[in-house]
Amino acid sequence: MKAVILANGEFPSHPTPLNELLDAPLLVCCDGAIENLEKLAITPNALVGDLDSIKEHLKKKYQSILHHDPDQNTNDLTKAVKWCIGNRINDIVIVGATGKREDHTLGNIGLLSNYARMGANVKMLTDTGVFYPLLSSSTIGSYVGQQVSIFSPNNQTVITTKNLKYPIENKTLPEFWMGTLNESLGDKFEISFSPGPLIIYLKY
Amino acid sequence: MKAVILANGEFPSHPTPLNELLDAPLLVCCDGAIENLEKLAITPNALVGDLDSIKEHLKKKYQSILHHDPDQNTNDLTKAVKWCIGNRINDIVIVGATGKREDHTLGNIGLLSNYARMGANVKMLTDTGVFYPLLSSSTIGSYVGQQVSIFSPNNQTVITTKNLKYPIENKTLPEFWMGTLNESLGDKFEISFSPGPLIIYLKY
Repeated sequence: MKAVILANGEFPSHPTPLNELLDAPLLVCCDGAIENLEKLAITPNALVGDLDSIKEHLKKKYQSILHHDPDQNTNDLTKAVKWCIGNRINDIVIVGATGKREDHTLGNIGLLSNYARMGANVKMLTDTGVFYPLLSSSTIGSYVGQQVSIFSPNNQTVITTKNLKYPIENKTLPEFWMGTLNESLGDKFEISFSPGPLIIYLKY
Repeated sequence: MKAVILANGEFPSHPTPLNELLDAPLLVCCDGAIENLEKLAITPNALVGDLDSIKEHLKKKYQSILHHDPDQNTNDLTKAVKWCIGNRINDIVIVGATGKREDHTLGNIGLLSNYARMGANVKMLTDTGVFYPLLSSSTIGSYVGQQVSIFSPNNQTVITTKNLKYPIENKTLPEFWMGTLNESLGDKFEISFSPGPLIIYLKY
């Protein structure tokens, strides 16, 4: 089973996340984002969050799909991911998770590795590209010249790449962002690493 | 001497970065951002970058303030900061550095600690808040309820906070983003840490 989660960042404008949302076999909406769906007359399958930010008439309208999770230690995106996993939905595409507060953007991107550790097969589609968490060495499909950034959330990870313009050879990244602005040399590239996680960004 | 650098992300729309730009005693423009200034009929004091992305007629128009830096290992924002420091300008405000490609946003925020290590007294103003790099323990002015996020670029930093809603007591952050979504309890808060750096975000 696959779900698309609409987070409470900027509503997508690029066709890739937008089509993913429109074609979602199961759509999970973080509570603050419901007003965007209202405008498009789209009804999600589930509406998840602490429900603090939902107006009363919307709570009433959507009461049959409301899933209240008051946990103050997780954000609404994490609540939506937990709801999916609790319902045995492990293939998860996140849209609308960037583009407002930058600290939320960084947090939501960092959380991807938590979601992978929770067992989700997850990716985040933004208006510019896609983020994937990686828990183990991977070969990733690409195109020649595709822009690639590698993020190391904990800086312990020893990395070796193949088929990237600026190769990394058996090294850690001293700070999380120091693997940005690379480029694929072909229709795939390889990242070998341990112990992980890593988060990869591919520009569309 | 103080300079404002306009980076090549989304042009500011919030009054705080916009006023900083309009009132800049010295305005340094990263090359790709010059078209935004053209539209506003603002002439910067310096136009810095690899100049790959500037149209020929603009190169000609601005030739007296062009500073060509072809280094392929740094981005245009870093070239602009280096230009400032090379001209003995150490008070630097960066605007327009977020809001397009998210990997650029993460990279530009991470670079703040590099700029601090280079000797700059630097902050980044976005449309939602301000980012500061910290190299040593600090007391930071705030208001009650102000949203605060703490980023640890290298995860080695042992942190203790005072006057934040979710205190950190003599701990490292396991991943760079795990200090997000905190809140100030008063008109200031304290962060003691070693060895650093840290990057702090304050929502306006």
